[in-house]
Amino acid sequence: MDKILYIGIDGGATKCRAAIAADDGKVFAIGVAGPANPFQDFDTAMRSIVEATRLALADGGLDGDDGVQLVAGVGLAGVNLPAVYAQVKGWQHPFHRMYLTTDLEVACLGAHGGHDGAVVVAGTGSSACSIVAGRHRIFGAYGFPYCDKGSGAWLGLQAVRAVLLQEDGLGPATALHELLVERFGARGNGIVEQLIDARPHALAALAGLVFDAAGNGDEVATAILRDGAAYLSALARRLGDDGPVPLSLLGGLSDVLLPWLDADIANRLSPPQSGADIGALFFARREYARETGSDR
Amino acid sequence: MDKILYIGIDGGATKCRAAIAADDGKVFAIGVAGPANPFQDFDTAMRSIVEATRLALADGGLDGDDGVQLVAGVGLAGVNLPAVYAQVKGWQHPFHRMYLTTDLEVACLGAHGGHDGAVVVAGTGSSACSIVAGRHRIFGAYGFPYCDKGSGAWLGLQAVRAVLLQEDGLGPATALHELLVERFGARGNGIVEQLIDARPHALAALAGLVFDAAGNGDEVATAILRDGAAYLSALARRLGDDGPVPLSLLGGLSDVLLPWLDADIANRLSPPQSGADIGALFFARREYARETGSDR
Repeated sequence: MDKILYIGIDGGATKCRAAIAADDGKVFAIGVAGPANPFQDFDTAMRSIVEATRLALADGGLDGDDGVQLVAGVGLAGVNLPAVYAQVKGWQHPFHRMYLTTDLEVACLGAHGGHDGAVVVAGTGSSACSIVAGRHRIFGAYGFPYCDKGSGAWLGLQAVRAVLLQEDGLGPATALHELLVERFGARGNGIVEQLIDARPHALAALAGLVFDAAGNGDEVATAILRDGAAYLSALARRLGDDGPVPLSLLGGLSDVLLPWLDADIANRLSPPQSGADIGALFFARREYARETGSDR
Repeated sequence: MDKILYIGIDGGATKCRAAIAADDGKVFAIGVAGPANPFQDFDTAMRSIVEATRLALADGGLDGDDGVQLVAGVGLAGVNLPAVYAQVKGWQHPFHRMYLTTDLEVACLGAHGGHDGAVVVAGTGSSACSIVAGRHRIFGAYGFPYCDKGSGAWLGLQAVRAVLLQEDGLGPATALHELLVERFGARGNGIVEQLIDARPHALAALAGLVFDAAGNGDEVATAILRDGAAYLSALARRLGDDGPVPLSLLGGLSDVLLPWLDADIANRLSPPQSGADIGALFFARREYARETGSDR
């Protein structure tokens, strides 16, 4: 009889990480490949999943003739969009089983050791996920510019808007003006010209300037951060509506945003236990157990 | 000696309109061709300018062997961006002289009969222009999503945001929800999926729903319109900083936005005297007179 191994795959805009474990849950092999966001580029994403899997198998000394059956838990950015989810589900995958969910659910599972919990994610975008009694719900994650409040892209956009309002004499003076003029070597339309059709990550690259200006007491930057953080605090509070669960703050801005969150939220936060690839392993084992009835 | 005629050309995202007049200023020939926004598509824009000119010449019974010299005033969307302006200035144009400015300046000149005045424009985007003592200043016009407050695209974006906040339980219930669900045949991510990388005009197509909802007393839609109109009122007030000038409201949303403007602004408004092509004619004559000293 073939041997079942679990592979947890976490795919996002910059990389794809795969972790392999046996039934005991201990990770013994890792593979890392390129971008795997099927909304941005479906073919590249599927290639990255295959490549990360191949690298993880090699890392574990598995040459493919071991009679190993891989049960994959795959968490991907973009699959919260129905059409993207359907596209990945229709992919001719190389696994014994493939269970698909969002990058958010596997991040949440990883942060809380596979148990119920919740995460607020603040990076280039903003989003949140709760898992209560094994059922997950997602909030935000609608993407820029529809609803990424408190995210890096949103902070950068607010900074640009504030600078343009100042230039037009329609908003208060802000230290952000000098910081953006220095960053772009231009003002007004010279800044906008460099930001036409800017992707979210290009705007998120300006977020640090908002924290810098606020740190030096700039009122406009402070108001922007308070507004963004108030949304993230409300998002975190909303996650508790289905029952009290442990809460973690994830994403590239988590450290710098922490002091701006409401105290009741900041005090509830616990550090994440592990990464999204480990969360994807929990997901693979849970879904396989559900399907095969082996948890009964 | 060749005969000088003036041609005013108004180019935008949907069409290019040319008007020919002699020294008396009376328009005797019109030509209309396709899109002429050089930021969106430079080659198409230049072709449209040439075509509108050809059609106007034909309309005026001028077959090109009349020894006519055309002095062109060209007002184009997009040339407020320095790189786009430089690109059009470098174009090998077919005119005796070509004077280039923004669509905003020629709209302002047209609205006020070639005299000092100011305009606030609220259509897909928002912007403003004042001409005081012959010098023009532009406000806004930075393009979506950087600073188009009060515009159709901005109103549509706010509607989408409000609907998503309601769905996440993070914002108040709004009649916009039912209106958008009906429009898109979807909710939440199903709406966002249809709006990924949406151009401003696609969002502006939702603006009517905000007016509909506000008209039926919806508080969220009312707050959105008040916020946008407050910006447009501030923009209009700013135009008077350089001296009192007549003020017109232009653009596709001008009629429906009028009741939302502050009373001091609404009461100051005068209807535009003529269109931007006529403004471009004023511009051509003014600039030619300046260059040749014929106004001294």
